[in-house]
Amino acid sequence: MTSFPSQLAEAVRSKRTPIVVGLDPRTKNLPAKLTPDTAHPKAVAAAYRTFCKQVIDVVASKVPAVKPQAAFFEQLGPEGFAAMGEVIEYAKQQGLLVILDGKRNDIGSTATAYADAYLGRDRHPWSADALTINPYLGSDSLQPFVDAANSHDAGLFVLVKTSNPGGGMLQDLVANGKAVYRHVAEMVETLARQEASENGTAYGNTGAVVGATYPEQLAELREVMPHAWILVPGFGSQGGTAEDVAAAFDEQGLGALVNNSRGIIFAYEREPFRHYAGSDWQRAVELATEQMIEQLRTVSGGD
Amino acid sequence: MTSFPSQLAEAVRSKRTPIVVGLDPRTKNLPAKLTPDTAHPKAVAAAYRTFCKQVIDVVASKVPAVKPQAAFFEQLGPEGFAAMGEVIEYAKQQGLLVILDGKRNDIGSTATAYADAYLGRDRHPWSADALTINPYLGSDSLQPFVDAANSHDAGLFVLVKTSNPGGGMLQDLVANGKAVYRHVAEMVETLARQEASENGTAYGNTGAVVGATYPEQLAELREVMPHAWILVPGFGSQGGTAEDVAAAFDEQGLGALVNNSRGIIFAYEREPFRHYAGSDWQRAVELATEQMIEQLRTVSGGD
Repeated sequence: MTSFPSQLAEAVRSKRTPIVVGLDPRTKNLPAKLTPDTAHPKAVAAAYRTFCKQVIDVVASKVPAVKPQAAFFEQLGPEGFAAMGEVIEYAKQQGLLVILDGKRNDIGSTATAYADAYLGRDRHPWSADALTINPYLGSDSLQPFVDAANSHDAGLFVLVKTSNPGGGMLQDLVANGKAVYRHVAEMVETLARQEASENGTAYGNTGAVVGATYPEQLAELREVMPHAWILVPGFGSQGGTAEDVAAAFDEQGLGALVNNSRGIIFAYEREPFRHYAGSDWQRAVELATEQMIEQLRTVSGGD
Repeated sequence: MTSFPSQLAEAVRSKRTPIVVGLDPRTKNLPAKLTPDTAHPKAVAAAYRTFCKQVIDVVASKVPAVKPQAAFFEQLGPEGFAAMGEVIEYAKQQGLLVILDGKRNDIGSTATAYADAYLGRDRHPWSADALTINPYLGSDSLQPFVDAANSHDAGLFVLVKTSNPGGGMLQDLVANGKAVYRHVAEMVETLARQEASENGTAYGNTGAVVGATYPEQLAELREVMPHAWILVPGFGSQGGTAEDVAAAFDEQGLGALVNNSRGIIFAYEREPFRHYAGSDWQRAVELATEQMIEQLRTVSGGD
């Protein structure tokens, strides 16, 4: 199988945009016709599955990847997890790469269990192409994920600098003259450079998460991690703009993915797409995706 | 409902020991008679459920709490999660407190979704009494968990200083004259003090995870967080001893829980319990629990 960074580069090139659509289903935001009649988890899970598949139907030809958010499925219990598995499968069948946003981590054999759960790619139970992970437990906690990613040609995105206002509390602390996020970034780069060298690719399997809401750090971190794909959340509803994310890309317009969740999947809740709120909600998803593609065209697109 | 720290203190007092039994089921370690015939997730999930319930049958009268490790159930897919729910329910029916080890975190409404999933206590889908969470995303990412814990009288254990050898890579970095783990500990203490004051209890709902493998930091962190229960992993197979964990307790022998997973649930794999490896494996669990109670008697026990 081709390595994850190669597949990613190819997908961004062919779709000519670096957009990831975040699949964050929430009952209160579902289009009226998909809102479940009861709060029973089975009914809500069915609604999430239908909604996510219908979003995928719209975006599959336009973007390289989707990012299901585990928490919203997890909240529904086992039935939610089953729906998440079906959504992942469906996205892959439609030719999308799937980055599961789980922000998992643990130590030793427990980390291996998480890696096996999510990074098996074509195997049970969830066949994501990549997973987000948390670095607080240190480099030895990342290794089982790195091993799994390398053995399945899957990808990882390590939280480096998150998009939330309070993310800096820990991540911006300065130790040995460098912010904590930079220490994490150097660890990511060490892994990514090694993997890139082994794969014979420009980028490694291990990437990073850096929020669009901190454009200066995004530029700094692009320099620090020349071999790591950067997944950039925080565009749109969290305030990040095309200008803010421009520095995340390399000279070929590659090396970064920009995520948008609510701003696309619930586009019918905001202007100028509000008049598509009824049975035509998928049209709002389509137009919002095209709008974002257009916004990013000057800064990236793999060409 | 009584607050989580009050229930915990009462449980430690009545069982006269601060032991938490970690439920980390793994196929390769299951007793021969419980080993599933196939690797099908349904069969493995059934085996995990039976094994964990039979461990609970042995330890329910002896210890205050159990700690299921989400990763091992998660690895099996939706059926594993269903088994995890049944194990949590069963443990509660047997009078045990349940700390779910999920090390979750995210931002904003996503963190709320995780909190709702696991901290509802008597509600669907999982009714744990407490959850482990990861602090890398900062204080605003903890707040939704704190709100959920406060509203359901549930508990939290924030990763502060983990037991693995590489944990120090990030956690021991010194910023503004203090290690990163200490910055996290001060955030935990701020939350815990406030909650203790609101509950009228000695401890708050927010606690901390500090590994037994770093006894000096454990003593330091007990001082820094006088209002936080400390969950101490790393005892036994990871090398922590009774002497190592002594400093985690307050003058009443309260304020800390010591976890042991493999050393108890798979006690039949090690000396001096190996001759119980056959159908008598529960006897090994019982004797290993009693041995650990005895080892900790001098340092704690809530009396």
